[in-house]
Amino acid sequence: MSLHRFSIVRPLLVLLIGYLLATVTGSALASENSHSALNPVTATARAAERLFPSGTRNVVLSSAADNDSIALAQALATKLSGALLLTESPHALGTATAHALRTLTIPKVTTSDTVLPFQAAAGKPHVYIVGDNKLIDTAVAEHLRSRGYQVTRLSGHGPALVRDVMQRVAPPMPSAATTAGFPDRWTVYAGNPSHNSAYRVPASAPDWEKEGVSWRFAQDAAVPLHAPFPELKIRGPRRAPVAMTQNLGEAVGVTAVNGVIYAESDDSHLYALDAKSGALLWKTSALANTLMANPIVANNLVYVAAGDTGFPFSQVLKYARSQGRAPLTRGLQYSAVYAFNATTGRLVWRHDFRGEAMPTPVYYRHTVYEATGGGRLWALDAATGKVKWKTPLHGFDSMSSANIYVNPKTHVAEILVGTTDKNHVIAVNAANGTVLWTQKTPLKIFNTGMGDNSPTVDQDRGIVVQDSVVDFDRKAHTTNLAIYAMDAQHGKILWTRKLGVGHVPPAYKAGLALIHAGIVYVGSPVTSTIYALNETNGEILWRFHIQHAGPAGAGRGNPVYAYGVLWLAAGPKLYALDPKTGRELGDYKPGGRFGIVNPVIVGGTMYLDNSYDWVQAVALKKIYPSLQIMSNNAVRAQSH
Amino acid sequence: MSLHRFSIVRPLLVLLIGYLLATVTGSALASENSHSALNPVTATARAAERLFPSGTRNVVLSSAADNDSIALAQALATKLSGALLLTESPHALGTATAHALRTLTIPKVTTSDTVLPFQAAAGKPHVYIVGDNKLIDTAVAEHLRSRGYQVTRLSGHGPALVRDVMQRVAPPMPSAATTAGFPDRWTVYAGNPSHNSAYRVPASAPDWEKEGVSWRFAQDAAVPLHAPFPELKIRGPRRAPVAMTQNLGEAVGVTAVNGVIYAESDDSHLYALDAKSGALLWKTSALANTLMANPIVANNLVYVAAGDTGFPFSQVLKYARSQGRAPLTRGLQYSAVYAFNATTGRLVWRHDFRGEAMPTPVYYRHTVYEATGGGRLWALDAATGKVKWKTPLHGFDSMSSANIYVNPKTHVAEILVGTTDKNHVIAVNAANGTVLWTQKTPLKIFNTGMGDNSPTVDQDRGIVVQDSVVDFDRKAHTTNLAIYAMDAQHGKILWTRKLGVGHVPPAYKAGLALIHAGIVYVGSPVTSTIYALNETNGEILWRFHIQHAGPAGAGRGNPVYAYGVLWLAAGPKLYALDPKTGRELGDYKPGGRFGIVNPVIVGGTMYLDNSYDWVQAVALKKIYPSLQIMSNNAVRAQSH
Repeated sequence: MSLHRFSIVRPLLVLLIGYLLATVTGSALASENSHSALNPVTATARAAERLFPSGTRNVVLSSAADNDSIALAQALATKLSGALLLTESPHALGTATAHALRTLTIPKVTTSDTVLPFQAAAGKPHVYIVGDNKLIDTAVAEHLRSRGYQVTRLSGHGPALVRDVMQRVAPPMPSAATTAGFPDRWTVYAGNPSHNSAYRVPASAPDWEKEGVSWRFAQDAAVPLHAPFPELKIRGPRRAPVAMTQNLGEAVGVTAVNGVIYAESDDSHLYALDAKSGALLWKTSALANTLMANPIVANNLVYVAAGDTGFPFSQVLKYARSQGRAPLTRGLQYSAVYAFNATTGRLVWRHDFRGEAMPTPVYYRHTVYEATGGGRLWALDAATGKVKWKTPLHGFDSMSSANIYVNPKTHVAEILVGTTDKNHVIAVNAANGTVLWTQKTPLKIFNTGMGDNSPTVDQDRGIVVQDSVVDFDRKAHTTNLAIYAMDAQHGKILWTRKLGVGHVPPAYKAGLALIHAGIVYVGSPVTSTIYALNETNGEILWRFHIQHAGPAGAGRGNPVYAYGVLWLAAGPKLYALDPKTGRELGDYKPGGRFGIVNPVIVGGTMYLDNSYDWVQAVALKKIYPSLQIMSNNAVRAQSH
Repeated sequence: MSLHRFSIVRPLLVLLIGYLLATVTGSALASENSHSALNPVTATARAAERLFPSGTRNVVLSSAADNDSIALAQALATKLSGALLLTESPHALGTATAHALRTLTIPKVTTSDTVLPFQAAAGKPHVYIVGDNKLIDTAVAEHLRSRGYQVTRLSGHGPALVRDVMQRVAPPMPSAATTAGFPDRWTVYAGNPSHNSAYRVPASAPDWEKEGVSWRFAQDAAVPLHAPFPELKIRGPRRAPVAMTQNLGEAVGVTAVNGVIYAESDDSHLYALDAKSGALLWKTSALANTLMANPIVANNLVYVAAGDTGFPFSQVLKYARSQGRAPLTRGLQYSAVYAFNATTGRLVWRHDFRGEAMPTPVYYRHTVYEATGGGRLWALDAATGKVKWKTPLHGFDSMSSANIYVNPKTHVAEILVGTTDKNHVIAVNAANGTVLWTQKTPLKIFNTGMGDNSPTVDQDRGIVVQDSVVDFDRKAHTTNLAIYAMDAQHGKILWTRKLGVGHVPPAYKAGLALIHAGIVYVGSPVTSTIYALNETNGEILWRFHIQHAGPAGAGRGNPVYAYGVLWLAAGPKLYALDPKTGRELGDYKPGGRFGIVNPVIVGGTMYLDNSYDWVQAVALKKIYPSLQIMSNNAVRAQSH
């Protein structure tokens, strides 16, 4: 029975009866506190200690005297992956609960303050109190605060409490109707073939969209945003970023559709967050591998790709023995493309591959295209995951997310993808898997080369841009980044530009390009510099050097263009640049560090994920305070 | 307030009042069932749907009218990683709960019945009803059963219910006092240097130990035991077992200490199970990588090793360019040795490495030794994880768990380990890290060779046995397995025996040896045969061929000797063999398939884990019904 039901006419009477009964039974229990007859307070405390042996970040505290709030509290605890504890009376935690709360502190497991990946930062849990101060007195909250706990009360009772808790546990899904200006689908890496993931919102959009919001969401393996680089001491400044990119947070950027931010994390989960508040709408259970792609959304399904970067020793030996001629299959662990219902998070289908499925798929006309570490391009039925066809790419795909170009005359759609070993860009007919052309440049491609980077497509001009590290100098340990523009119909090289020599960056070595209004904007982690090039001839128009990029370099994710400003996430910072000159207009350090992450701009907000396993919303004005967002009516970037 | 508190004198009165109130408030709520004022039944149901978007294997059903049982039910739900739902009345689920229950069915996501790793088998959840039929009527349970749900009721009320639920949620930890015959620590791979993980129990041991128990425990990524090999269709019969060994279930066997079975799974968790019942005592949160070692236990700490098998592309290129001369570092993801409190599961320390930490550590005199994919042997303080010293091994360790030999004259302890590339067995002084000797046989070692296998040590005779694949024939794609015995003091080869030519097995290619009473028992996955060899000269005494081993071969885990019988886990089967002749005495197919798994025998029970992500106890009599367990007093295998 409950103290606080939803009739508002009799709470006081019920409260009185309930309180008296609780007091009587509570005192009667003290003597029965043996293992064979624990009271629920003690039982819950013991269960929490056993269930969270190394502590927890979140504890939900509920009154033992109110079943309604217990039911709500357990839902919140499940949501927060935290422990439920019960108070013995409105005025006291009780011995067992106090003991459990101490035990649930996350232990410090290193002698230094080193942050360890996949290990929550040491400290006391955040305590959520469910119920008003009649159920759990203010003094209890104050006592906890005085002991150094962060305390949040979800107050009220009856319907108000239900509303408050449910708002956190199962917040309503945003809809297209309430989130005007958000794209309604996301069919290629970075939202559209030119990689301009920026969406103006109409005048009818809600104020939060226009003005911008700021929030942070910690995913499962999140390390503190202000912490130094995890594992720096163990792997060193060059190798720690590699491990982080491939195993900790997000390798690439988020997806924004109909007011939802979708993010694929290396912690093996897909997250759906409310774009306005950052609240978790749903997350999947752990999938089969790390998730390094940009979620693709179409027709209310989210497509997610899972894969890893490794080679088995047998492939190492085979490759060495063949002097680099034997074909390689990348990916050791289970690899798959998953389709989830975009609204409910329910798994709809899954297709497994031999060889990793790291790159982002392309959605086009009820088909999902995925290039794999097994060296094939797969065409899957978007509704069922059934194979339509597969085509050998004559090289394995590392992280080259495919792109699409539709020939305006013939209406033939090309799926474009880069491969490693052999290194080339290949165009495949989306309808039937026929190879249309293969471009292997005469450049001296190095390392994962063309297979790491996603081509950028200018649909209007019929131009494809790709870049790759080239000209490796073994002695100096330097390389160059070459960018080349191809004719989208035949793959003919239109121009090539080498961007500059520098130390070989670890891990992902290329920069994603944005094409906007006749200019190619691209970064080079070799030189930690952003370049603007004339799309017609490759002439360098300006350079912007990223300060303090460190030995991993910066400049991997593509910039985006919005409101007459070029926006960029590079190293630990966000930048606003003048697209005409490269002059810095503003910057902001939101915490953490960015991998191949492109900003996603909707209205006045930039959405990002990072290598520290967080998703963030940053109001554009934090980066560029004097920004003027021109009012307009729904000028939105195109997507297929 | 509760219907059933613990005083036994007033339940009927309270029940009556409670029931009336529940009825009144329940009916009052129906009209308020909008999003802004959900009742707890509906709120809990909606939360469950949102929290388990792709269903769950377990649902815990509790009465909305009893706060005590809700508190217990939520603890059980957390334990089972399942959803909590509430009944609207004793007689009905209510609309919202019925809807949620349907939604919580795990969807079928393939068009075939293919079992997918890291994806629960499709179907309805198991429903646990918490409370007696006054809280949830028998008709509700019957209704659920008629709809195809498996239903388990945890009945009783008050203290009896608490006891019943707590027995599942936080079962008492077994102690050395109640589990006579179990070893009290586990210091090397397979329990002792000779790899004879068999423990007789004294006459004073409880009956269940002597007679043997049988149970099964499904870990987080468990696939159905009766299912065909997962991923067979995608990777083929040779490659599917490789992925499974390295990414799905347990690569090697379990640890049995003081009545607890510890198992490290590739699903990234360490599990502690009750040896008598198979109940989960605790499990860790997800660690940083796959766990392929045999847990080491000493002084109430459990040492766990996390690492993966991959190489980055840069290592592939470097190795090819150097024509196999460049040193390799294995392991891409985060790698660490963890120490957990053996009783509570609490993390005590963690030490991270560059290069994987797949092999099992050795515990000796307050020091934990770990050989890594970074090619070093590390000596860590067992209490704190602080580095005492590290020594280069001049080759990387793949899966070669170290072993120990103590010179009876000098009392110098040697840590023995095999490495790959370069291939050798190396002995390091446990006190200071000095290399004592290195044995690189003149044999033509192949693939991961000596770095995959753990040396076996005969402490009494001062002999070390190691084996490796040799003589790879590229055209025939065949290899041989060579076993060699070394003098433990100097590493001098005493004898070598090639066990026979066969197809190259995928993945782990060696067999772990057992030394018992002057005989070496070892399997070869090359020939899928178990051999008995004279320890003095390597003469083959008998052979036992494992039928239907399939293209992956069988014979990786070491046999164990107990009660005059040789016990073996190979392929899908458990065998009892006559150790004198190799004649089969009995076999049993417990479901699933075994990797490098050695049986662990305590009294009348064999404890195992498998590639399907299950832990199992099998009474020895199931394997060999006419077994006579000789009564004796605590003749226990030695461990350091």
